[in-house]
Amino acid sequence: MKINYPNGNSFGQFNKNISGNKKHHFTKYGDRGMSLEHEINQSNQYYLSKGIAVIHKKPTPIQIVKVDYPKRSAATIKEAYFRKASTTDYNGVFNGYYIDFDAKETKNKTSFPLSNFHQHQIDHMKACVRQNGICFALIKFVLTNEIYVLNSEDLFYYWDDQFKGGRKSISKATIDKFGYKIDYSLNPIIPYLKAVRKIILKYKEI
Amino acid sequence: MKINYPNGNSFGQFNKNISGNKKHHFTKYGDRGMSLEHEINQSNQYYLSKGIAVIHKKPTPIQIVKVDYPKRSAATIKEAYFRKASTTDYNGVFNGYYIDFDAKETKNKTSFPLSNFHQHQIDHMKACVRQNGICFALIKFVLTNEIYVLNSEDLFYYWDDQFKGGRKSISKATIDKFGYKIDYSLNPIIPYLKAVRKIILKYKEI
Repeated sequence: MKINYPNGNSFGQFNKNISGNKKHHFTKYGDRGMSLEHEINQSNQYYLSKGIAVIHKKPTPIQIVKVDYPKRSAATIKEAYFRKASTTDYNGVFNGYYIDFDAKETKNKTSFPLSNFHQHQIDHMKACVRQNGICFALIKFVLTNEIYVLNSEDLFYYWDDQFKGGRKSISKATIDKFGYKIDYSLNPIIPYLKAVRKIILKYKEI
Repeated sequence: MKINYPNGNSFGQFNKNISGNKKHHFTKYGDRGMSLEHEINQSNQYYLSKGIAVIHKKPTPIQIVKVDYPKRSAATIKEAYFRKASTTDYNGVFNGYYIDFDAKETKNKTSFPLSNFHQHQIDHMKACVRQNGICFALIKFVLTNEIYVLNSEDLFYYWDDQFKGGRKSISKATIDKFGYKIDYSLNPIIPYLKAVRKIILKYKEI
């Protein structure tokens, strides 16, 4: 089976799917994942063009094994593999604040499975929060096309709780109560910085 | 010609060299570039382990053209190309400040050629500075093994000046005067956050 994508970015979400149960995830979430990534990239492009924030998706980490150097043409990677990212996918700066987040999707209707995150991503966000960075999860319920921003502190609580006998998912009701619902708009498609502003204000009050 | 590197990171600097005059740069700076990248990664690992800062090198952007999906094994990238990064190589958070920089080397003894930077990298840093991020260039004079941190504002001045008839390089004397010399240490190998602290203090006074 071969697939051609001119745009390396498209493999970001794809890579994430592969890092899990690849066949399963790829067929189930592949396209949706890419489209969410596209929506976020478009939103970041809008924020950048307006001078509102500088936030980019990190390139997909690739382990390169073999490179050819044809004469008079660009080096060609002949063998490489997708690697699991050691951090989150998106980071940047907004009005002096370090912004760091990851985008996840679920086909579940009533809850968000914590298995969408990896321990190292949580560890990375905890380290960023200790440096006073603003970290969060952008969660999309694909069946209802609903998007939420869940602040990292809330994510951490439920992540850690699962290892103390708590549930392995966060109920949508909880996300709706503690998170920030983001309504799709024309431009940016996903105005998630509205939620980030609220998180910053809340965090300033402390 | 084939080269095998188990670690994708190694291709960061390598990719940067390729984006210029590849053959030339690769043979001239390849190894040194990788070693500087290794030194910075080690320093960032130290800062991370001590809870001092969370700064990572971004993966090398790759344009993927062909991927194979062998049964019962990981997806294999069969054809891909190095892409020119649209941002700088390193970013993260330090004590609430967004940190963004790129590392460059020169074999010149008395000056740093501005051609080591690309306009889009300068534009990216200017956008980050407008968001109150801390941006700078980490410059290594490889023949004397001297490393300097040059704040973005100074880099911007000389970058813009070259288009107004100014010189196409920054003299080492200027870098020594306005930049911050970083002495190699045991751990971290390159304690560049010492310079970042000074930049932050200076920038706070304004």
